[in-house]
Amino acid sequence: MLSELQKARIQYQPVIPAVLQTSVDFEQEPVAQAVVPPPPFPTISTFKALRAVAKATTVARPLRVGVVFSGGQAAGGHNVICGLFDALPIGSVLYGFLNGPAGIVKQKSVELTKEMLHDFRNQGGFDLIGSGRTKIETTSQFEAALKSVQDLKLDGLVIIGGDDSNTNAAYLAEFFLQRGVKCSVIGVPKTIDGDLQGKGIEISFGFDTACKIYSEAIGNTARDAISAKKYYYFIKLMGRSASHIALECALKVHPNLTLIGEEILAEQQTLPQVVKSICDLVCERAAAGKDYGVILIPEGVIEFLIDIKELIAELNTLLLDKNSDFQKLEMGLSIASKACFQLIPESIQRQLTMDRDPHGNVQVSKIETERLLMALVESELEKRKQKGEGGYAGTFSAQPIFCGYEGRCGLPSNFDANYCYSLGRLAAMLIEHGKTGYIATLSGLTQPVTQWRAGAVPLAALMHQEMRAGVEKYVIKKALVDLKGKPFLHFANERAKWRLEDAYTQPGPIQFFGPAELTDSVPCSLRCE
Amino acid sequence: MLSELQKARIQYQPVIPAVLQTSVDFEQEPVAQAVVPPPPFPTISTFKALRAVAKATTVARPLRVGVVFSGGQAAGGHNVICGLFDALPIGSVLYGFLNGPAGIVKQKSVELTKEMLHDFRNQGGFDLIGSGRTKIETTSQFEAALKSVQDLKLDGLVIIGGDDSNTNAAYLAEFFLQRGVKCSVIGVPKTIDGDLQGKGIEISFGFDTACKIYSEAIGNTARDAISAKKYYYFIKLMGRSASHIALECALKVHPNLTLIGEEILAEQQTLPQVVKSICDLVCERAAAGKDYGVILIPEGVIEFLIDIKELIAELNTLLLDKNSDFQKLEMGLSIASKACFQLIPESIQRQLTMDRDPHGNVQVSKIETERLLMALVESELEKRKQKGEGGYAGTFSAQPIFCGYEGRCGLPSNFDANYCYSLGRLAAMLIEHGKTGYIATLSGLTQPVTQWRAGAVPLAALMHQEMRAGVEKYVIKKALVDLKGKPFLHFANERAKWRLEDAYTQPGPIQFFGPAELTDSVPCSLRCE
Repeated sequence: MLSELQKARIQYQPVIPAVLQTSVDFEQEPVAQAVVPPPPFPTISTFKALRAVAKATTVARPLRVGVVFSGGQAAGGHNVICGLFDALPIGSVLYGFLNGPAGIVKQKSVELTKEMLHDFRNQGGFDLIGSGRTKIETTSQFEAALKSVQDLKLDGLVIIGGDDSNTNAAYLAEFFLQRGVKCSVIGVPKTIDGDLQGKGIEISFGFDTACKIYSEAIGNTARDAISAKKYYYFIKLMGRSASHIALECALKVHPNLTLIGEEILAEQQTLPQVVKSICDLVCERAAAGKDYGVILIPEGVIEFLIDIKELIAELNTLLLDKNSDFQKLEMGLSIASKACFQLIPESIQRQLTMDRDPHGNVQVSKIETERLLMALVESELEKRKQKGEGGYAGTFSAQPIFCGYEGRCGLPSNFDANYCYSLGRLAAMLIEHGKTGYIATLSGLTQPVTQWRAGAVPLAALMHQEMRAGVEKYVIKKALVDLKGKPFLHFANERAKWRLEDAYTQPGPIQFFGPAELTDSVPCSLRCE
Repeated sequence: MLSELQKARIQYQPVIPAVLQTSVDFEQEPVAQAVVPPPPFPTISTFKALRAVAKATTVARPLRVGVVFSGGQAAGGHNVICGLFDALPIGSVLYGFLNGPAGIVKQKSVELTKEMLHDFRNQGGFDLIGSGRTKIETTSQFEAALKSVQDLKLDGLVIIGGDDSNTNAAYLAEFFLQRGVKCSVIGVPKTIDGDLQGKGIEISFGFDTACKIYSEAIGNTARDAISAKKYYYFIKLMGRSASHIALECALKVHPNLTLIGEEILAEQQTLPQVVKSICDLVCERAAAGKDYGVILIPEGVIEFLIDIKELIAELNTLLLDKNSDFQKLEMGLSIASKACFQLIPESIQRQLTMDRDPHGNVQVSKIETERLLMALVESELEKRKQKGEGGYAGTFSAQPIFCGYEGRCGLPSNFDANYCYSLGRLAAMLIEHGKTGYIATLSGLTQPVTQWRAGAVPLAALMHQEMRAGVEKYVIKKALVDLKGKPFLHFANERAKWRLEDAYTQPGPIQFFGPAELTDSVPCSLRCE
């Protein structure tokens, strides 16, 4: 059943860049981006970046296209499909593969019609066709995908996904080319984490909506902090591994402290050092009469702490022995890692040792970093109090908060609604022109939508070599927060003020009606660039 | 620093009921509500309910008024103060007591000016003057409050609070009358919990905004559930003890299962029975191919389970012995309570025994009921699987979510903004007419604001006798969910459909601009009545 707001949003007409309003040609950008062709991509690594230029509307032949969601949800996914559907030439057919890439391999698809799409326009979620995390990696999977595409006689396949899914798209594009199959494979950059960016991709979709939803909650909580004046809120933010979400939310709300994983890594910080830095903040604020505050903790920060990183690596090795028990594990650790392990409260120790992923590894996402830090900060503050160190005489009461699942499937902001609809439209045009092995890109996103530029970046240009499960692989590199980039520098420049002053801003809920400055804002991180 | 939305909201002009737009007279309602005068209130229990009737604007004498926030935050508090300030006759003075009732006792106050209020109009939080939980109970506190009121020569004192704070207001009103001090004491019904209602109070302020914020998150999460199809979300909702918030959110979102504490109490359910009912849901859904879902759990539900209630009572007695340790505690329990205790995972056992409130009691609010239920459901499902009971062959993966602090200080919805501003205005008028021992009431709230009725209910009429820390006391009764009331009956009538169908509705974020059906909605619970 649709809410009043859902119904109202169905009526919203996404704004389209001027260049995409009629037909386009694609011109090659003068400079090739993939300078050294990575070995697995002999063909697609020779492609050059594309720029769309408008031309008069032409009558195109009907197309047969498939589309799939891959990986975690991000707001706007349904609009990619709607934009794609609406842009396909008359007589075209659009298939949705069900429940992620598994739908391609297992040949599970559904033909999408205008009627089916009606209730999904400008709506959150991926539930029109579902999503999944299956990776198309093995030869038999590639063959199955090929058969799927051939059986449906597809001219194109649009893969809506993050770094791993677009890596898959690249392998698939190369595979189809080598087998002489004329099916375009086009990627669309999706992920709330914001780590699929750079080289022509300004931002992935879903990031804006997720950060706005989290910032609403963080801003409300900050207002609670200054009203009740009794709690420290330790707020963990979803998103692995990069700290883009935390940085964006910090720029929006101005919390007292924000951990940035990339900075922690650059400074080779350990868990005790981070605990110390939080305790220092608490003591400084207590001296100013403030026993409350707001601290942002990116989910991925735990992986950037050098001692925890080492501990996890050792545990992963020890966990290979299926008979290992808690005691054996602890005995097997190096002296440094044992010390680190013993620092950790028992409940978190269990999260580290009991919960393993399907490969037997420690499940980093299950570690409740916000609670770990709360416990360690509390005990360190107790020590300082007893030693009379720094004259700390405050009271410390903390509350853990997790901003997570509620941010992935919200009603997309106007930015994400427009961005996604236009990305879908662009994907249709790339397929129409027979382009393959590309990711669709829109740029100039801080400008009015009509002025956005459209183009495509060869997926091969995004690749780098990386160790995955002990094997060297070509994959799309996750874009971490650039410590020399403008968003971080702006944050670094402002944050000293935010420590003691309560300079919180309350962004409030996403607005869909009213003045443009309320409805059409773009991420702060983009505005900084 | 104000966000764009905060700035836009400052400009919002709250709508005022027609009857409050000029001056009013107060007429007595024909029937006295407090039939049996409770002993502590010989004077105010003789008062009759009042009804405001409009009259031509009259020039009134300047007033000196104090205002205080008491207890937990609720959206709209600042608007009560703004409405009060704007309605006071020219030349009046308004003092804000700082950080709750402690500010009255300690004579800490600040004179509020138009300039100070400017940035707080239609904003969330209580930070203009802060709040606190001090209760004015002892003789010396009453005397201090009297001195405070006399020193500032106050004509009136407005107490913005929940059931306990308004109980305090009643005692203070009676005390002032008996000492011959002409200072009106007027209560304003505040609490997100929605348990200050009945006898002329339709709803407390803050409930609407909190439920809308929680429902946004729950709706988003439900959309995530049907998109990823892999998690059961166990969502705990803030609010003690009544389940009004859970009921309202259920009516808005249609989750698969919603626990209602009052129903659990009526049916004398135990923890294992509730676990069984959740497992039954999971099994039914698994049979329909659905290994995901959304379950709402009111924070207060734990107190309604008869076995847990007994366990907590026993623990509270045992905890009186300050030397009790974990083992002693367990040994001291009755057989039934020991069995119940042993059912509970160790981490929650510790929450039950380690965290005590200032009176040495178990801190019920610290019990993570959502995690307790997740753990027990998981182990019960495992047993069913092994026994082959009911053919359960699903996979169960659950995520805990807590909708809490972010709901108390959001930007107030139009409903709460209008309601609070008008309540403040009404409070000013009650003081102008020398009324005391009343709580300000607006009714007909499902009608357009201009048609709302205004009046006041004697605080004494809300009282009942209750055991508090072993002593019989007259206090305002918390209004629980009425199992024969229309909101619950409507829910009970619909919920069977919601179990297996994914009938989720996504209300989305609160809107402040656009069509009235989006911006001006009132709680479903009110519409049902």
